[in-house]
Amino acid sequence: MNPDLDTLLERIGATAVERDARGGHAAEEKALLREAGLLLWSIPREHGGLGRPWAEIYALVRRVAAVDSSLAHVLAFHHLQVATVLIYGNDEQQRRLLGHTAEHQCWWGNGMNPLDRRLLARRSAAGLTLDGCKSFCSGTVGSHFMTLSAVLDGAPQPLLAVVSTEHPGVRILDDWDPIGQRQTDSNSVAFEQVPLEERNVLRAPEVPPTPFHTLRNCFAQLVLVNLYLGIAEGAFAEARRFARTQARPWLASAAQHATDDPFTQNRFGEMHVQIAAARALADRAAALIERAFACGPALTAGERAEVAVAVAEAKVLAHRSGLYASQELFEVVGARGTRAALGFDRFWRNVRTHTLHDPIDYKLNMLGRWALKDEAPDPLNYS
Amino acid sequence: MNPDLDTLLERIGATAVERDARGGHAAEEKALLREAGLLLWSIPREHGGLGRPWAEIYALVRRVAAVDSSLAHVLAFHHLQVATVLIYGNDEQQRRLLGHTAEHQCWWGNGMNPLDRRLLARRSAAGLTLDGCKSFCSGTVGSHFMTLSAVLDGAPQPLLAVVSTEHPGVRILDDWDPIGQRQTDSNSVAFEQVPLEERNVLRAPEVPPTPFHTLRNCFAQLVLVNLYLGIAEGAFAEARRFARTQARPWLASAAQHATDDPFTQNRFGEMHVQIAAARALADRAAALIERAFACGPALTAGERAEVAVAVAEAKVLAHRSGLYASQELFEVVGARGTRAALGFDRFWRNVRTHTLHDPIDYKLNMLGRWALKDEAPDPLNYS
Amino acid sequence: MNPDLDTLLERIGATAVERDARGGHAAEEKALLREAGLLLWSIPREHGGLGRPWAEIYALVRRVAAVDSSLAHVLAFHHLQVATVLIYGNDEQQRRLLGHTAEHQCWWGNGMNPLDRRLLARRSAAGLTLDGCKSFCSGTVGSHFMTLSAVLDGAPQPLLAVVSTEHPGVRILDDWDPIGQRQTDSNSVAFEQVPLEERNVLRAPEVPPTPFHTLRNCFAQLVLVNLYLGIAEGAFAEARRFARTQARPWLASAAQHATDDPFTQNRFGEMHVQIAAARALADRAAALIERAFACGPALTAGERAEVAVAVAEAKVLAHRSGLYASQELFEVVGARGTRAALGFDRFWRNVRTHTLHDPIDYKLNMLGRWALKDEAPDPLNYS
Amino acid sequence: MNPDLDTLLERIGATAVERDARGGHAAEEKALLREAGLLLWSIPREHGGLGRPWAEIYALVRRVAAVDSSLAHVLAFHHLQVATVLIYGNDEQQRRLLGHTAEHQCWWGNGMNPLDRRLLARRSAAGLTLDGCKSFCSGTVGSHFMTLSAVLDGAPQPLLAVVSTEHPGVRILDDWDPIGQRQTDSNSVAFEQVPLEERNVLRAPEVPPTPFHTLRNCFAQLVLVNLYLGIAEGAFAEARRFARTQARPWLASAAQHATDDPFTQNRFGEMHVQIAAARALADRAAALIERAFACGPALTAGERAEVAVAVAEAKVLAHRSGLYASQELFEVVGARGTRAALGFDRFWRNVRTHTLHDPIDYKLNMLGRWALKDEAPDPLNYS
Repeated sequence: MNPDLDTLLERIGATAVERDARGGHAAEEKALLREAGLLLWSIPREHGGLGRPWAEIYALVRRVAAVDSSLAHVLAFHHLQVATVLIYGNDEQQRRLLGHTAEHQCWWGNGMNPLDRRLLARRSAAGLTLDGCKSFCSGTVGSHFMTLSAVLDGAPQPLLAVVSTEHPGVRILDDWDPIGQRQTDSNSVAFEQVPLEERNVLRAPEVPPTPFHTLRNCFAQLVLVNLYLGIAEGAFAEARRFARTQARPWLASAAQHATDDPFTQNRFGEMHVQIAAARALADRAAALIERAFACGPALTAGERAEVAVAVAEAKVLAHRSGLYASQELFEVVGARGTRAALGFDRFWRNVRTHTLHDPIDYKLNMLGRWALKDEAPDPLNYS
Repeated sequence: MNPDLDTLLERIGATAVERDARGGHAAEEKALLREAGLLLWSIPREHGGLGRPWAEIYALVRRVAAVDSSLAHVLAFHHLQVATVLIYGNDEQQRRLLGHTAEHQCWWGNGMNPLDRRLLARRSAAGLTLDGCKSFCSGTVGSHFMTLSAVLDGAPQPLLAVVSTEHPGVRILDDWDPIGQRQTDSNSVAFEQVPLEERNVLRAPEVPPTPFHTLRNCFAQLVLVNLYLGIAEGAFAEARRFARTQARPWLASAAQHATDDPFTQNRFGEMHVQIAAARALADRAAALIERAFACGPALTAGERAEVAVAVAEAKVLAHRSGLYASQELFEVVGARGTRAALGFDRFWRNVRTHTLHDPIDYKLNMLGRWALKDEAPDPLNYS
Repeated sequence: MNPDLDTLLERIGATAVERDARGGHAAEEKALLREAGLLLWSIPREHGGLGRPWAEIYALVRRVAAVDSSLAHVLAFHHLQVATVLIYGNDEQQRRLLGHTAEHQCWWGNGMNPLDRRLLARRSAAGLTLDGCKSFCSGTVGSHFMTLSAVLDGAPQPLLAVVSTEHPGVRILDDWDPIGQRQTDSNSVAFEQVPLEERNVLRAPEVPPTPFHTLRNCFAQLVLVNLYLGIAEGAFAEARRFARTQARPWLASAAQHATDDPFTQNRFGEMHVQIAAARALADRAAALIERAFACGPALTAGERAEVAVAVAEAKVLAHRSGLYASQELFEVVGARGTRAALGFDRFWRNVRTHTLHDPIDYKLNMLGRWALKDEAPDPLNYS
Repeated sequence: MNPDLDTLLERIGATAVERDARGGHAAEEKALLREAGLLLWSIPREHGGLGRPWAEIYALVRRVAAVDSSLAHVLAFHHLQVATVLIYGNDEQQRRLLGHTAEHQCWWGNGMNPLDRRLLARRSAAGLTLDGCKSFCSGTVGSHFMTLSAVLDGAPQPLLAVVSTEHPGVRILDDWDPIGQRQTDSNSVAFEQVPLEERNVLRAPEVPPTPFHTLRNCFAQLVLVNLYLGIAEGAFAEARRFARTQARPWLASAAQHATDDPFTQNRFGEMHVQIAAARALADRAAALIERAFACGPALTAGERAEVAVAVAEAKVLAHRSGLYASQELFEVVGARGTRAALGFDRFWRNVRTHTLHDPIDYKLNMLGRWALKDEAPDPLNYS
């Protein structure tokens, strides 16, 4: 990438351990990402953005995640909401919302969690109103817009909409205190009598989702893939740096330097190959999603299924390589790597937290049904 | 065990998460262990102790570790130093040091780290004097006695001795701040002109170690085995409790309750079997060490090798089951288990920290040379 | 064990590769086992047998399996049928059937396969008659007696009985041609108008099975455990022998001899530890089954469950260590170990065939339900 | 691919089990491959071949390997020798040798095994003469040409050359009888006073190998990758077919059909994802090798190293997925899949045999040194 990004990542990395300990909102660092223009990558050029390919956006996410997976998370979720507008929004919505976003370099937050059905939309003479609560709203703190799903009485499925996060009645709670991914701003958001303009409804609840619509799931899952993978790469990079500069060979080793120990070398080889495999599948999935996205509403169910399968394959490997590398990091640096000041445990805590998003067993089950019985992935099940 | 121990463990467990966050010295909880008479278990009855079998002591360590592996660590290291006196000490030393220990229920700390050769013993007309530093002196804070190894000029190997931790010139540094095992009091200890009485030298540097002497390594390694295993059992217990009371089945699951999900059940089955295997080997090793200890100085090199191999086998499985269960705990409880307040990550941080004590690759190497070439484990290599 | 057994195993081993290729019935080698008195081990002394403890019988099975797992299979299944008589038979049956068996050193075969319900028992004025077929009747070729289960019209469960394998109307088919365990004589047996004497009915179909009855499952499963484990030990022994005498270090290795290569050593260490863990659980299960067997009909459901769980734990590890060692054998001996004349693939084919007896997934599921929900193993499910 | 290839593979597959049992030379099936024009794929169009991209050739190898990995082996080794001529040969050699090959659709065999240094070349007034022996000469039976390496007295490295396999003095021994890959014609070849024309020397022993030269190793290793992977795919396909048509759910399963059992589905999911990962890396390596090959002699050491690393990554995953799928095949089809007539064990025997070609430990070591220390793969070590 570019030298500016290197500098930016270095600045972010310098405080990553300290901010992980602190948790909460990384206002200053999010400002740095914004100032570097990174919020514009997914916005089409015609709306004032940079229109970078999704493969590049995912590579960016992965690279940021290697240094700070919380910041990578909020950045990726911003782009996921932009993708949501591109997928569900009509021309006017795209022009208006994304144009505004590009002009002001706004952050977007996420309120789409389909498992949480507590946010209700009510229709009255005065229009739509939102009341209730939504959990795990990543990136909402300090954001300008947020997407959301809300249950409308009697409707077969939730409506999807956009609101201004700064609107009166929208209140971000202070309830995000996990063991990892501590600065993702994934707080709950409470809504009290928040009016919802009709022009901000992305998908009315009576519109059945098309294959193109549910490609949004694939975009979301591929965010996770690249976050896990970035964490794996970050853990590997730290292990490598420490092994080359600080580690000592074990007393029973014939090696003069830790990097000459054959077992240590093979452990690095193993980490390398696990990560390489996950990366190959992640890159393949990004290429497929790019192509599917370009199909637009013409995307068929079969084409969509191919993408979902490719993303799921990548997710299984990224899940495992993330957990593996972040645990293995310690095996190759040894006891001296456990000083709290080094913060080496944050990789594991971050990936362990995030890999629980949806269970790997059901991901494998979906892949098995696909491979064994030709069953297409069910979009309702995070696929 | 007994109801008193249950109550004690409940009290300790109630503050374990909070104390893990805080780190430092657990004065109050160590007082509870002492008041429960647990320091007396390894001391022979003739010296005023309880003379419990080592198998029971290791089972105790494991049980405490399931609740708080830092406290289990200091308790186990106390008994390891008692074992050290029983192995290296002459009759007078055993009677005097252990008698005093039993009478006052003193804590012992450990200063035997063989990798740190900075502590020097000098002999002058006035006798022996200690100067220098020793790292990773688990359990020294708040202890009455500590064992130590020190380099004596021109001697072929270190002398082993006992000093009073409270003696002027012995200074415990405040440098223990790791990612796990945060309350093991494994600080460095500095020695400045500390006189060492000849009667407190356990092994003079000119005495070559016998197989019985180096059985001390096996005692130490079996401490680690039971700490890792206790952590695995603790993680399992938390996972089970949470799954039964708090977890929800995944949306794609046909199960009504998380505990009815077949994949969750199999993950518990897998954890169970990993732990059962490690436990069987740990128990077998404890039985062998008991028998070898009973041989006393008559223990042959061959008998000692059998014990060392059994301990190493158990260590490999305990290492893995500890890492496995503490990571898997999350897989079976799901995303809701990542709240920092639950402190579920402490199991992994504890076992990850402690499993770096000595590399598993060289443990496997030792086992391989034994199995393939009949080479006895080398006591110099933590075996 | 004893020198005679060593000699016997050497003789058997000398033809094991050739007989594996040939398949079919190992009449000569079965005669050797019989002549060595090995059929008498499980028969109580009061009936003319040797009354050896079950732990020793299982150790014998394991040891034979290391050399020839087909012969170990038929030997173990002989003892399993003796156990069946001891569990289900009344005093007269035990005295008569086992007395005869001891006197003539008869072989027993197995016709208890509960999944095959094609063998029907009919009751007429003339008494009971058997018609139909039973598959996987291990050890029936050349046997004198066989146990069987048969469906009696209207009965809630099968009756269990003993017939003479040599009786007219009993016909052993020639349909056993698998990829492994090729000489276990696990042919189908057809029954045509075979009279069944009432005195040979071990359990009438109206008698509900007691916990002691269903301990038979545990005996059967523990046979499998020790067969798998014996195969693992045999594969390890061959690997060791070959590595020490024939293997060469890889060209990139600094070692002068294959046994000095660090990676080879660690692979042996890993095999060793896998087998050690399986062995510890198998031995523990044997001790528990011995104790449970000694309880006789007083055995409670809870005690029986403990045994079944211990056997299942051992089975999971034996299953895996068998597959692992028989595949890993090649990794440590290298390409020169693939010559067909060496027959090194028979270990894998044998264990792969036999480990399919009942699925490991459902074994883990049973263990998970036990560990998570306190559900006792269901005897109907091979537990 | 095309319908003709489907038909061809069906014909080959119909006899694969029987020919595996028989071993030896598959003259008839090799004729089918030849008649289908498959020997022409790697030969450039200007020499009368089809000039298909290497990615397609490797995909062909993989596809044939799924049905019969011995035939895939000889086909792939044919193309490897063509690549050898394209890499080492001068224009005249390429035109003459490959022109002849295309015109007559000749088979090529391999005599390049660098570990076997028994074949000597001697230079006299009459020219070069070959004497000695070469082992593992895959594909030589029934071939027209073979490549070889031979030791020339006093030369720093072997010379590489081409001889006619049918030349008097070239004698193919009957010594290939392994447990797998039984029809690869990997016999030893004896040479007695075989004249070697100077115009058939591909590389004189005094010419130091260039990065482009040693790309030959990468081509060879990528053959293995695709053979292993093809075997994995073949095992998966058989497992799928059997599970869908023959397998029964386990008695404890709630499923009506084996393919509805959740554990079976997840095992298929796991196989699928392992194979998908290996395939992604194999495809990536094929793309890289294609590009590197196109560089010709201008290929730099750095570019060559990237290819070698990519091939090694793929090899580690293909090795494992091959062993995994060929063993797992049985787990998902159950005991009924062990009938010898089905021949399901051939996948494991084939991949187990071939994966011993060079040790995975040293492949991982090479990757570790690359990843940790920036060391380029050493072409002398099969990299």
